[in-house]
Order: sequence, then structure tokens, then C-alpha cells
Amino acid sequence: MQYSISLIGAGNVAWHLAQALENAGHQIREVYSRRVQQAEGLANKLYDAQVVATLDFSGSAATVFLLCVPDDALTAVVEQIILPDNEAILCHTSGTQPGEILLGYPNTGVFYPLQTFSKSRRLDVSTTPFCIEASNSQTEKILVEIAQSISQTVYLVSAQERKVLHIGAVFACNFTNHLLAIAKEILDREDLEFDLLKPLIKETFEKALTAPDPNLVQTGPAARGDYQTLQSHLAYLQDQRNKKAIYESVTENILQMAGKKKNE
Amino acid sequence: MQYSISLIGAGNVAWHLAQALENAGHQIREVYSRRVQQAEGLANKLYDAQVVATLDFSGSAATVFLLCVPDDALTAVVEQIILPDNEAILCHTSGTQPGEILLGYPNTGVFYPLQTFSKSRRLDVSTTPFCIEASNSQTEKILVEIAQSISQTVYLVSAQERKVLHIGAVFACNFTNHLLAIAKEILDREDLEFDLLKPLIKETFEKALTAPDPNLVQTGPAARGDYQTLQSHLAYLQDQRNKKAIYESVTENILQMAGKKKNE
Repeated sequence: MQYSISLIGAGNVAWHLAQALENAGHQIREVYSRRVQQAEGLANKLYDAQVVATLDFSGSAATVFLLCVPDDALTAVVEQIILPDNEAILCHTSGTQPGEILLGYPNTGVFYPLQTFSKSRRLDVSTTPFCIEASNSQTEKILVEIAQSISQTVYLVSAQERKVLHIGAVFACNFTNHLLAIAKEILDREDLEFDLLKPLIKETFEKALTAPDPNLVQTGPAARGDYQTLQSHLAYLQDQRNKKAIYESVTENILQMAGKKKNE
Repeated sequence: MQYSISLIGAGNVAWHLAQALENAGHQIREVYSRRVQQAEGLANKLYDAQVVATLDFSGSAATVFLLCVPDDALTAVVEQIILPDNEAILCHTSGTQPGEILLGYPNTGVFYPLQTFSKSRRLDVSTTPFCIEASNSQTEKILVEIAQSISQTVYLVSAQERKVLHIGAVFACNFTNHLLAIAKEILDREDLEFDLLKPLIKETFEKALTAPDPNLVQTGPAARGDYQTLQSHLAYLQDQRNKKAIYESVTENILQMAGKKKNE
């Protein structure tokens, strides 16, 4: 079934979802953003979406309202929303916020795409896992149906599971990105090009993602229990306090997982 | 020019280099391994390489001897090697060991492929950067020539630069792999499939490697200065001491790089 959907927020998430939803046959009715220009930019990409300047949707023909605003703006935005009627569904797209943040409306849910979105990068939404949670079974049915119309991978995920997925994503994505940034800094200090490491980084990730468990393909001085190299690296990082702290904490854990240490 | 090369070691590195070297027209004369079966397995893949059982190469027709043994075996192996004559070149392939470990021979060098090798994975050696260091200019010329015959990217790299590249690689590859292993562990504890995170991980890495600097595309609660989420994640990790220590040290550094904290 096709749904009439309005978007609250016109950032990276809204940008990618809106186009995927239209391609799946849904109609985007309205686009709201605090920054009107952003709403206009997005609406221009869509068939007949209207830019709206307030969060009063009492006259809207949409049945699903998708919140795509940053976590820290969510509560303030929700307080201002007026839905057209009691049948309307209000859902957010956040990995961290509980569904309860939408309380006060009868049909609410979470429509969380487990992906990182940038306007400047094309992305295949169909391979993005969607995590759905809803306040009642009819809402759940509709949100699952919409998610399945744009993605091959749709899961019912409780708030607790969503939190754990988010913590996993922080390690697997935010932290790994930061380690790549640190590696670049380390090379920059010696005027070495970060490009030199890129083939190795690519192969590392492909290997980790095709292995049954990344731990099975762990390499490096800590995995080998090569304390001489570890000491020499720590000595080099001596004047870079934070990098040294990261080196120590990650190394400690690799040593333990590799069975090179006995404590814990 | 084509060279006659003998391989000391028949592990992952020797496996990939031997075939690339043969494809480039060089002749692999001998393969030595402590584990004779490994040497036989590799020699069987090559045109007319002989398996040898000792490190006495006094009768060898090879001019370049490539050490592909684990770091911790290197010194012991080097002590036993007898080269055919004073013209022969002895080089190792280690990212961590100094060239001086080969002292005692007149023509020595380092022939370090900045890549992670597994026998079970096909790998395009031509995109692997090779870091070359040599004890004299004639040896350097020959090692660069051999490296360029199998790779598009060949750099002259000092021992200090090689060490820094290796530290960068530890952060960018060994540590990132470990963070992926941690993410899988975190999901496993709640019976969530690691596959759910894979599209996000892939996109994260592609984004980081195409950005001018991974730091410019850093996302997540620490980059946003979202202390509420950070606290909630740390509370969840409370009984997983090592993961919590990693979470704290990496978060601390992201907060500082993002300008969300003022100290250091």
C-alpha cells in the first residue's frame, strides 16, 4: 500500500529517505525544517511536496509523520507538533531516543535506519537495515510495510536492542573512523601520505567483514604478544598522551582476547 | 631486468610475493621453510623453484634472498644463513625490524609490503605500497626495480618512517579490526546479528577513505558532545571493564578533537 507521508526535518536522513519513499510509490506531502532553505532544497527534489513553515499539521492529508531532526532538537520539536487526527502516526528516526519521547500521541513509533547518511554521497537505501518499534500493532504493521517497501532488511527491535545496536555502531563506526583519523595524524607528523595506508585499510575491512568473526583475523603486535614492538610504539607515543591512552586500552583488550594475558 | 630470487619463509607474505614476482618475469630459485610441507606447497605453485632444507645457500644461483619469516624468528634465521657470494642481496620484509638486523652482509635491505596477507584471499599486489630501504645505492636500485616490477607504488622509506607507518597501521588496521570484534561481542550478548551493522561499517569506511581527512566526517555522540548518550553507553558497559576503558579513552580523544573539551 502507498502512504502519504510528511517529513519533519530536511537534513541528511530526510534527504535519503524522501527519495527512497517516493521511488517506492509513497507520496511526500509536506517538508518542514527550521531552516526553510533546506526544506525548499529537499522539496525541489520531490514531485509535489509542499514546504511548510509551522509544525501545525492539523490540515494535513498525510497519515505518517516522520521526524528526521537531530536528537537534541527532538523533544522541543515534538512539543510543537499538532497532528491532523488521532489516526496519524508520528515516528522518529533516532537510534538513541526512546519511543516514549513521542508520548501524548496514540500511534507512535521508531523508524530507525542503521546507516550513516551524507547528502553528498549516493547510498543504496535498499541495503540499509531498518529497526522498527511501535506503540501498537496496527502502527507496527504500517511502519514495517513502509520500511519493507524501501529496504530488504527490516527488523522489529526493542528500545533495549536499539540501544545495544547503537553502542555496537559507536565502536564499529564512530570509533573506527576516529582511529583512521589518528592514523592520519600520526603519518602527517612525519610528512607521510595517508594514502600509503589505504590499500591496507581496505583489505583489513574486507577481511573483517567476510570472516565469521573479526576476532579470528586479528593481526598485529598485540595479537602476537610481541611486547618489544608494543613497548617501542608506546615510547614513540609518549608525548601524545591521548593516543597513548587509546593504544594502551585497545592493546590490553587484544592481549586478553588473544589469550596473551591471564587476568580478568 | 629479471632477477633470480630465493625465498626464506613460505608463509602468507612469501606466498603472495612469490607469485607476483614470477608473473613479473623473475625466477624463484629456492624456497626454504622450517616447515618443509609449507615450502613444498609454495614450490608446487611455482615454475621450477627448488625446496631446500638448509639455510646454506653457498651453491645457490640466486642473487636476491628475500626473508619472509615472522619477526620473532628473524634473528635466529639470519644467523644461520650462508649466502653464495658478496654480491648477493639479503633483505627482509618486516615492518618493524631495523635493517641492521641483517648486518654482517655487505648488501642488505628492507622490502616491506604495506599490506595484510592471507593465503586464502586473492590480493592485487600491484596496488600494495612497497617500502624500500637499503644499505647502499646499488642494492637500493635493485630492490626498487624489483618492487616496481610488481607494484605501482614504491617508496624509499627510512627505518624511522617505516616505524611510524607501522604505528599508523596498528591504529588504522589492527585496532579497527579489534573494534569490529568488540562490536560483534556487544551484539552477540543480546543475540543481535553482526550482519545488521555491516552496511553501516562499509559506508563508514568508504566515507573515511574518500574524505580529505577522516576527522572531517566524524559522527556519533562524542563528536556531537552528546553527554547524555555517552553516559548511558558507559552505564551499559559498566560490567565490561575493558570495553568501558576503550570507550572512555577513544571518546575522550574525539571530544577533544571535536573541540568539545578544552583541556590538553
